Amino acid sequence: MTGSKSTAEQYTGYQSKMQKIADVRNTMAVLGWDQETYLPEKGAAFRGQQLTTLSGIAHELFTEDALGDLLRQLHHHKDLDALQQKNIALSLEDYDKNKKYPASFVAEMSNATNESYHAWIKARKANDYSIFAPALTKMIALKKQETTILGYEGHPYNALLNEYEKGATTTMLDKIFEDVKSALSPLLAKIEARPQVEKDFLLKRYDRDKQWQLGLDLLKEMGYDLQAGRQDISEHPFTTSFNPHDVRVTTRIDENDFGNMTWSCIHEGGHALYEQGLPAEQYGLPCGEATSLGIHESQSRLWENNVGRSLNFWKFHYARLQQLFPENLGNVSLERFYQAINQVQPSLIRTEADELTYHFHIMIRYEIEKGLMDGSIPVNDLQHVWNEHYRKYLHVTVPDDVQGVLQDIHWSHGSFGYFPTYSLGSFYAAQFFTTAQKQVPGLDDAISHGNYHSLLEWLRTNIHPFGRFYTSNELCKKVTGQELQFSYFLDYAEKKYAGIYNW
Amino acid sequence: MTGSKSTAEQYTGYQSKMQKIADVRNTMAVLGWDQETYLPEKGAAFRGQQLTTLSGIAHELFTEDALGDLLRQLHHHKDLDALQQKNIALSLEDYDKNKKYPASFVAEMSNATNESYHAWIKARKANDYSIFAPALTKMIALKKQETTILGYEGHPYNALLNEYEKGATTTMLDKIFEDVKSALSPLLAKIEARPQVEKDFLLKRYDRDKQWQLGLDLLKEMGYDLQAGRQDISEHPFTTSFNPHDVRVTTRIDENDFGNMTWSCIHEGGHALYEQGLPAEQYGLPCGEATSLGIHESQSRLWENNVGRSLNFWKFHYARLQQLFPENLGNVSLERFYQAINQVQPSLIRTEADELTYHFHIMIRYEIEKGLMDGSIPVNDLQHVWNEHYRKYLHVTVPDDVQGVLQDIHWSHGSFGYFPTYSLGSFYAAQFFTTAQKQVPGLDDAISHGNYHSLLEWLRTNIHPFGRFYTSNELCKKVTGQELQFSYFLDYAEKKYAGIYNW
Repeated sequence: MTGSKSTAEQYTGYQSKMQKIADVRNTMAVLGWDQETYLPEKGAAFRGQQLTTLSGIAHELFTEDALGDLLRQLHHHKDLDALQQKNIALSLEDYDKNKKYPASFVAEMSNATNESYHAWIKARKANDYSIFAPALTKMIALKKQETTILGYEGHPYNALLNEYEKGATTTMLDKIFEDVKSALSPLLAKIEARPQVEKDFLLKRYDRDKQWQLGLDLLKEMGYDLQAGRQDISEHPFTTSFNPHDVRVTTRIDENDFGNMTWSCIHEGGHALYEQGLPAEQYGLPCGEATSLGIHESQSRLWENNVGRSLNFWKFHYARLQQLFPENLGNVSLERFYQAINQVQPSLIRTEADELTYHFHIMIRYEIEKGLMDGSIPVNDLQHVWNEHYRKYLHVTVPDDVQGVLQDIHWSHGSFGYFPTYSLGSFYAAQFFTTAQKQVPGLDDAISHGNYHSLLEWLRTNIHPFGRFYTSNELCKKVTGQELQFSYFLDYAEKKYAGIYNW
Repeated sequence: MTGSKSTAEQYTGYQSKMQKIADVRNTMAVLGWDQETYLPEKGAAFRGQQLTTLSGIAHELFTEDALGDLLRQLHHHKDLDALQQKNIALSLEDYDKNKKYPASFVAEMSNATNESYHAWIKARKANDYSIFAPALTKMIALKKQETTILGYEGHPYNALLNEYEKGATTTMLDKIFEDVKSALSPLLAKIEARPQVEKDFLLKRYDRDKQWQLGLDLLKEMGYDLQAGRQDISEHPFTTSFNPHDVRVTTRIDENDFGNMTWSCIHEGGHALYEQGLPAEQYGLPCGEATSLGIHESQSRLWENNVGRSLNFWKFHYARLQQLFPENLGNVSLERFYQAINQVQPSLIRTEADELTYHFHIMIRYEIEKGLMDGSIPVNDLQHVWNEHYRKYLHVTVPDDVQGVLQDIHWSHGSFGYFPTYSLGSFYAAQFFTTAQKQVPGLDDAISHGNYHSLLEWLRTNIHPFGRFYTSNELCKKVTGQELQFSYFLDYAEKKYAGIYNW
């Protein structure tokens, strides 16, 4: 005979099940980190197999009927506090969503992703979109099927957006990208009418070791805890977290481009500060996880752009930079340096875009994804639509597919609905930073003295500790008193570029 | 209705179950590697939890009744070839052994190990064996219980020896250590009667980066595949394998001791060559695993001592070494260098011992472990027995417990029966190397020209590819025509030290 368990005991049981799953998933993250940093090349095949095994184990654990039963018993239980109730509600939501996928669909999607990724690689090598198109057609058919599996209101694309940014809809994004178009186009035109600032001194030789040390120093000064993290080199910079006490960043160093490492380092540092600021006692539970990609990106971009590309930031750091690289910067004034690092220049490649034109790259992808999902853009027209959009919004001619429609890996992975979160991140960042400037006395002054303590404290109080307790929308209202408003970004951009392009 | 499965299908099912377990265990090895190399300090607690979770999952998988049923169905099945039958037989042996442990014993042992390790740390800090003694008493009681659980013939210690070196017994080891005593004692006395060789030039400053590069170069030249492995820094050097295509070594560098890195690098390289030489197609199965610790150690010591401390080896490398470190070695002849790296000097610490006196350190531990297991040495007498043995065999006075009975971590981990494999490794190495010298035309000459290809090929043909298909004893007979004979090591040592100490 077993007595019935108390709610507290049941909640503890739920916690330990979730932590076990988190242990497996975080172990996969360690394997993934190793794969991008230190894995010897011949080890790739067995590593893939090891990841598949762990992924299978995590899936088995998270679809156990016993977990579902437990979650349903605990759901809305009045003995639980608000945080516990939120954890249960979100876990149940995740559990039920996970259970919706038929095994046959999961297998088909896994194969399609694999095929599609290899087709994309092949198409890039041949610089020929038509090689990718059949796999993409199949992928899109599956993603449409997924929207039906998941269910949605309004536009089918909403089902996919929701995977990355809970609550995001085409209604919300249409409005935001309408603002991008109507407000940023004139701003861009205004900039293009002014004499261009020079940035050639950023493309001279910058010693690798000095860059590495500078990056580490900046991370430390931002407040990134190197006893609970580390920096390594990888081909593409990323942040990964195994728990709030082990959050790692990577960077890459281009000896002929100062900007490459510096802002990617600050950017990843912003992601890492969020992960280090999540509540460790909520490990494995929803309230211990980042709330959305948009909010995650708001943290990286706030540090990268609002802080790291500001004049205040470099007022403090520039003298040191000149000492480090006198041969390149000895004769460059702070003002010229500041202009250079903020140069606006429409270009072909999203990841190399400046802070302003970046959002046109995203808007184009957003419109295309929406059109692919509702069928208004046929896959076979994609290349044409892409090139037209680039001509129209960024006034550039796409010379080939590698610099055009084949540039991003996302679609080959089946990641539709991901791109918009990049822009949302910038817009949230502007709104958060403006709020911090209002709420933190002397914030700008502190930053201009290399002191980020009060900013980090504000983030650690207002953004980081809640995990998924608040959705991005709820968090934004709680912190700033308003839903996301594009006007904050616009104000920030107008003021900034007026200073840089002198009007 | 399900049709009955063919033997081939069942064997495939067995393979995939075993590979899944291997994936989990190898993932634990990745976590372990990361822990010793790159883990930020605050990440330790969650890492421990993640390891415990994976260990639990591996245990669940390897104790599944379905696996036992499958193994019993396949056992001695005539449709399987010899290799398959061996895999099944060994897996069943492992499975049954694993099942013998009552859950209560496993839990008790896990707690005891934890306590005992912390007691050992505390005792070392206080330099006081009596702090460790109570935990050790408990540990030994549990190890005695384990010998009963496992079962044994003859001495209870045999049950523990068998865990590290299948088939090893006190009868075999008594004989070997009797030889150590009766043959190496006079040899040591003979050396001690001769003038000591000097080695102070090995303890000058040797640049860290140059040492690192030298180590990597030596590994490459030995044939270690750096596309299927890598070297990193850790506090204690070790080799770890995640599969034959990803076998990693670590080293440590002491800028004031040339020998520290060099031979540890070659030693770990020998381990790594064995792991890289295991058959990848047997991944996860017994015939894809190293056969014993003694054979593993034979590979590291063959390279470290028989090759890496030989005159032939340095005939080739010494000129380069002089070029690398002219300030220390410019005026030191090859002969003086060779003497210095082979200096024999009785000492207190096992891990710092030379190739000859090392075996007295092991003999002492062997006699103590045997005595602890049969009760002839009480735990409370251990410190006294230890110090007496050191005085008697090595003519050194143990000044304190940290330099005496508390020096090794093994007992605190419950590793009893492990130490003898270190000596077995040296003795197997001598027997294997002598056989290779007979069978490989021009081997010594090749080595003296920096060419290890023919040696590695011999090892890759005769030792590495069999995994656990042969026990160490069977392997030794197959390769050398004889069971392990101490005389090979003795001949090697007598010849070597006659050259070095000039008699």
